[in-house]
Amino acid sequence: MKLQQWVKQYQLGLLFQQGQFGLEKESQRIDDKGNIVTTPHPRVFGNRSYHPYIQTDFAESQLELITPPNAKLEDSLRWLSAIHEVVLRSLPENEYIFPFSMPAGLPPENEIQEAQLDKQEDVEYREHLSKQYGKYKQMVSGIHYNFQLSSEFVKAIFLLQDEYAHLKDFQNALYMKLANNFLRYQWILVYLLAASPTVEANYFSRNDVLNFPLKEGQLVRSLRSSPYGYVNSSNVVVNHDNLENYVETLEFQVKSGHLIAEKEFYSNVRLRGSKKARELLEKGVQYAEFRLFDLNPLEPYGISLDDAKFIHIFLLGMLWLDETSGQKEVELGKQRLYQVSLEDPREQTAFREEGEAILSQIIDMLKIINADERAVKISEEKLAQLAEPSLTVNGKLLKAIEQEGNYKALGVKLAKQYKAQAFKRFYALSSFDNMELSTQALLFDLIQKGVTTEILDENDQFLALKFGEHLEYVKNGNMTSHDQYISPLIMENKVVTKKVLSKAGFNVPKSLEFTSIEQAVAHYALFEGRAVVIKPKSTNYGLGITIFKQGVTHRDDFVKAIEIAFREDKEVMVEDYLIGTEYRFFVLGDETLAVLLRVPANVIGDGKNTVRELVEIKNSDPLRGDGSRSPLKKIALGDIELLQLKEQGLTPDSVPQAGQIVQLRANSNISTGGDSIDMTDNMHESYKQIAVGVAHAMGAKVCGVDLIIPDLTKQAEPSLNSWGVIEANFNPMMMMHIFPYQGKSRRLTKNVIKMLFPDIEI
Amino acid sequence: MKLQQWVKQYQLGLLFQQGQFGLEKESQRIDDKGNIVTTPHPRVFGNRSYHPYIQTDFAESQLELITPPNAKLEDSLRWLSAIHEVVLRSLPENEYIFPFSMPAGLPPENEIQEAQLDKQEDVEYREHLSKQYGKYKQMVSGIHYNFQLSSEFVKAIFLLQDEYAHLKDFQNALYMKLANNFLRYQWILVYLLAASPTVEANYFSRNDVLNFPLKEGQLVRSLRSSPYGYVNSSNVVVNHDNLENYVETLEFQVKSGHLIAEKEFYSNVRLRGSKKARELLEKGVQYAEFRLFDLNPLEPYGISLDDAKFIHIFLLGMLWLDETSGQKEVELGKQRLYQVSLEDPREQTAFREEGEAILSQIIDMLKIINADERAVKISEEKLAQLAEPSLTVNGKLLKAIEQEGNYKALGVKLAKQYKAQAFKRFYALSSFDNMELSTQALLFDLIQKGVTTEILDENDQFLALKFGEHLEYVKNGNMTSHDQYISPLIMENKVVTKKVLSKAGFNVPKSLEFTSIEQAVAHYALFEGRAVVIKPKSTNYGLGITIFKQGVTHRDDFVKAIEIAFREDKEVMVEDYLIGTEYRFFVLGDETLAVLLRVPANVIGDGKNTVRELVEIKNSDPLRGDGSRSPLKKIALGDIELLQLKEQGLTPDSVPQAGQIVQLRANSNISTGGDSIDMTDNMHESYKQIAVGVAHAMGAKVCGVDLIIPDLTKQAEPSLNSWGVIEANFNPMMMMHIFPYQGKSRRLTKNVIKMLFPDIEI
Repeated sequence: MKLQQWVKQYQLGLLFQQGQFGLEKESQRIDDKGNIVTTPHPRVFGNRSYHPYIQTDFAESQLELITPPNAKLEDSLRWLSAIHEVVLRSLPENEYIFPFSMPAGLPPENEIQEAQLDKQEDVEYREHLSKQYGKYKQMVSGIHYNFQLSSEFVKAIFLLQDEYAHLKDFQNALYMKLANNFLRYQWILVYLLAASPTVEANYFSRNDVLNFPLKEGQLVRSLRSSPYGYVNSSNVVVNHDNLENYVETLEFQVKSGHLIAEKEFYSNVRLRGSKKARELLEKGVQYAEFRLFDLNPLEPYGISLDDAKFIHIFLLGMLWLDETSGQKEVELGKQRLYQVSLEDPREQTAFREEGEAILSQIIDMLKIINADERAVKISEEKLAQLAEPSLTVNGKLLKAIEQEGNYKALGVKLAKQYKAQAFKRFYALSSFDNMELSTQALLFDLIQKGVTTEILDENDQFLALKFGEHLEYVKNGNMTSHDQYISPLIMENKVVTKKVLSKAGFNVPKSLEFTSIEQAVAHYALFEGRAVVIKPKSTNYGLGITIFKQGVTHRDDFVKAIEIAFREDKEVMVEDYLIGTEYRFFVLGDETLAVLLRVPANVIGDGKNTVRELVEIKNSDPLRGDGSRSPLKKIALGDIELLQLKEQGLTPDSVPQAGQIVQLRANSNISTGGDSIDMTDNMHESYKQIAVGVAHAMGAKVCGVDLIIPDLTKQAEPSLNSWGVIEANFNPMMMMHIFPYQGKSRRLTKNVIKMLFPDIEI
Repeated sequence: MKLQQWVKQYQLGLLFQQGQFGLEKESQRIDDKGNIVTTPHPRVFGNRSYHPYIQTDFAESQLELITPPNAKLEDSLRWLSAIHEVVLRSLPENEYIFPFSMPAGLPPENEIQEAQLDKQEDVEYREHLSKQYGKYKQMVSGIHYNFQLSSEFVKAIFLLQDEYAHLKDFQNALYMKLANNFLRYQWILVYLLAASPTVEANYFSRNDVLNFPLKEGQLVRSLRSSPYGYVNSSNVVVNHDNLENYVETLEFQVKSGHLIAEKEFYSNVRLRGSKKARELLEKGVQYAEFRLFDLNPLEPYGISLDDAKFIHIFLLGMLWLDETSGQKEVELGKQRLYQVSLEDPREQTAFREEGEAILSQIIDMLKIINADERAVKISEEKLAQLAEPSLTVNGKLLKAIEQEGNYKALGVKLAKQYKAQAFKRFYALSSFDNMELSTQALLFDLIQKGVTTEILDENDQFLALKFGEHLEYVKNGNMTSHDQYISPLIMENKVVTKKVLSKAGFNVPKSLEFTSIEQAVAHYALFEGRAVVIKPKSTNYGLGITIFKQGVTHRDDFVKAIEIAFREDKEVMVEDYLIGTEYRFFVLGDETLAVLLRVPANVIGDGKNTVRELVEIKNSDPLRGDGSRSPLKKIALGDIELLQLKEQGLTPDSVPQAGQIVQLRANSNISTGGDSIDMTDNMHESYKQIAVGVAHAMGAKVCGVDLIIPDLTKQAEPSLNSWGVIEANFNPMMMMHIFPYQGKSRRLTKNVIKMLFPDIEI
């Protein structure tokens, strides 16, 4: 296969580097002492039988976290981060994720429960493994790395070659080359990336100890990749000369009873694309799964982006090599793997020269295929590590273990640290922090509950959700197929909104517009005795507004207010003034799920601290931030706030009395430091029903309704004195209700999921 | 009642002038000879039993057109115009609306059919009328004018008076005053507005002729308002002293058999608000119906805005008068009415002095209540007409009759003229021409089919529709509750649209974006052999675009095209080029209702005319206009068109050969003079199904889908060579399909109505 020549000649370098990447990461749940827990897989993650992101591997305690395939490795790492944050925040308080591949604090074997999957055959398979290999071997964890070549690249090369008549056969040969060369040189990755240098003694509870007892304090590169990891018995041999041989010898192993199923064949490469190996011959290999990788405990989620990129580069190198390894070389590779795994990680490897030769070829390749500088730099660093073992993952890890005393203690420390880190901005998904908080919250719940999610457009907050065969699209966290198109159109138009609500019998403040003082004054009789607000049609900074809260009773006052308003605009509105407090009702379907009160930015005095200090204290709340990426905003001490203070006879250096409420803003917007207070349980049911009615009148399923209510504890009455509708919002900020400043959090994103997929248990 | 004093003192003038106005206009359908037709009420108007706008009065031939109530008289006139346009365009080709109140060309009595209403009792009532009064009397037509006082005004005055304890009683007294004073002075309106000076001799087919034969050529002011109109027998007397007496004496007339039902009591004022008069005492009068008015044949729709305004002013005057007429004055008023009706319309009235006194008082009132100048001017003109009868409606009408020979001939001439006028811009509703054409077309169909329609916001094309109890909202003619909110959100985002369609298996042109020449060139292999278009991401005037229709086969060509594109923008797209013609599919539900081809502006030579002349000829098509208010646009001869001509070696003064197609634009937009050609029946069914599938994939019910198709006659195949989707549009221009340049019109607005109200027969 003249791959090198074609890539060079036809400048296929960038195409060669394209592909799809997916990661699967196993790890053990542990308690705060570092012992593996025997608790069941948390129910909060829904049912494993369909969960696309959070599964269990062998044991009930062994999480398997799976990213969707992505065209960019960066995205796979983002998903890995997001899934971890979901899991870490969802685990019981005293549970953590152990960051090492090798387990510690193993419970007695009889207490280890095989993963309780729905299908009986899946449980039975695990019971077979327990019997065959012992449970402890199955408790080792690692990262599987899925890689799919760009189909455009495969097609392009196929058209250039003349060895294969069918694309599928050519593609199979390409993946076979990748697999075999990988198996030949995999030891290099173990040298560079391995991170399982030691294990607790009781791990070797059976035959191992007799055959190969690790000496006291002996360190190796990778116990997991060594014969002391999870390996088939030595009589299981599968021929790698070509895919046909591979399939036939694998099938023979099953038929002859050496393996209970094809999937019991443990290889560091699996060719994927069908359930049975034989089908690969027909359908073609779709992608390859590389199962070699130890968890890197120094990385919060087990692997760094650079290492993930290096693995990709290495895989490209395996395709790039002139020749394809046959069965003989594959077996040589396996020998070297075992040998390197058991080398002292503080020493250079016996095969340094071969490693350096391969990496040099890879670096040459990178230049030919126009790889980016980062790729070259990463590869050069890896090349240097062949001379200097202390620079490898193991090198750094050993230092950390030494400092902490033992790997278990280090594991516990890191596990706690990673969990704390995941809670730092508990309202966000760090790796998707460019999206709105509501969409992040929804994404969190989707990952937790196992709804397959594709991000169609990050900037536009556009998601495609799939559960079983049921497909839904969501924008901005709550815009879905459940709302009628006409609803937002009604809500966007204030005139139409009022008419629609008024027709449906809801209390709406009436307003009249005037284009001259005379015209307005001539209508005085209409307003006499009514609470009204008189304002310029376009209000700037609240100029020109007069409010008659007690009702306008003197004609002269009215005239004056009209004149003031006309100074600011050519059109003036006289509108019913609603007396009371504004509450935001979040309606979904036939229910008001949350009620929120928004309070202007303020601090409460304690008789000791200055206003400035009180603001600082209040701003230290983790919910408060500066940008748009926090549920609440920090209170500023800008011109507007200083003016507001001045009106109360205060400066930032004043010390307010204990209990004194210091107003820092007149407006109640959250965006200017206001407080959000959940009032759902305080609000009289009658108003909640009104809010639902308002949403229904506009044909809305999900809707924010703003009501003005003088007394939230009293039964609603039909008059405008009892309540009035201000407006309805088709894009209500769910985040305000999910993370209020005060009061109960209302996880509305779960209700959205339940609305879209009623079958999901929330 | 000190109404004048209170209005003055509390400046209630503007409030006094507010109210609600509705018009009901009867008229006979006639043939082209001016004879009343005996055809049934056209089926196209749906069922009379619910129709809010188009009913039949006494006879099957007698249309009754009803406007909804409006706060502005202008709007009532707009509705009257719109309903007329609908009716005139819907009538059979040889039918017209007779513009006179008095019928002409009456068929033999036995051929006149009473209106065939659903309810048997309604038909029987009409049969009773036929027996009681003779059918011919019932064939007279007029305008009924409904007026409701502002409830705010009534309340304001109620609070100032102390004669009545209950608002309802006060309101009843107010309407009683209005009715009685009107009946006292109605002769003034007859003098000014009457327009039934004559009738054909056979109208007096019974007792009339014996009692009062009109002399040969004798003219009167209003036959309709005279005893020769439709009047009760003289023994029917109803007392008007107060509402209680009114109710009791009316009930007595029915009980004693003088009237078959209360509604048979023919009075020029009816107090409305309940089915039975007695209920008015409980519920209160809601509005008053004034039935005095002859059709003004010189006005296309029977009444001018000025006259409608004057009637309002007159009614205000009747409320304004110091005293309320009692039964005695009401009877005096009736005497004067009869006397004035039968006066010679060319002469002054016997009661000129009283008329001038009343009108002067009204003009004084207008000044006090701050009425606008127009109101004063109209009233002053009417005042002057008391001295000069030739200025009255009759005065002008008589001249026109004289010119034409007789009133029937004038009626036929005007009827034809009004019908032709209604067809002039047959694609529009003249009085709602500020709305989009699609909304006008929808409004046309709604009026025709009898869906009660409220215009919520004209500028925003927002309608509320009601049929029975079923309420729907429509924006832009096709945005409704039937579309999901997520659909337009998907369509608005081109990236998401492509992903959604691609996921659903539709052929979508793929595109890649590049930020450097090197990066783009490195991907050459991806595009080799494919038809692609290379373009700057933001295209201006088509600069920097290269199209490889036959597929890009040379690397150098590709590089050159990329370089050219990068001269125009920092980002360049390489996109699949779809070979074929773009068609617009209009999908509603599970069906493609219309397929349209848009062709760039062009003319076809005839070997005689210059390009300029050909453009002029083409532009004379009534569908072509300049602004946004016509379905097609006039072709301009601007810079772009001249350039386009130049490229073909032509100037505006060239004479193209017969059959030569002269392109005047490269773009196919209708807005730049392009042609729209209906292709619905030419398109292979398979593409129609694809368009439906595309709409479904986005969750859309109403949707415009743009497909590129090389051969519309061939069955669609799965490849991009057979067809591709460009985009989908959630606000498809229905107008293009309703009024195409060529091919069959597709009345999509009817499908929208059927979708919203499946029970309506379309």
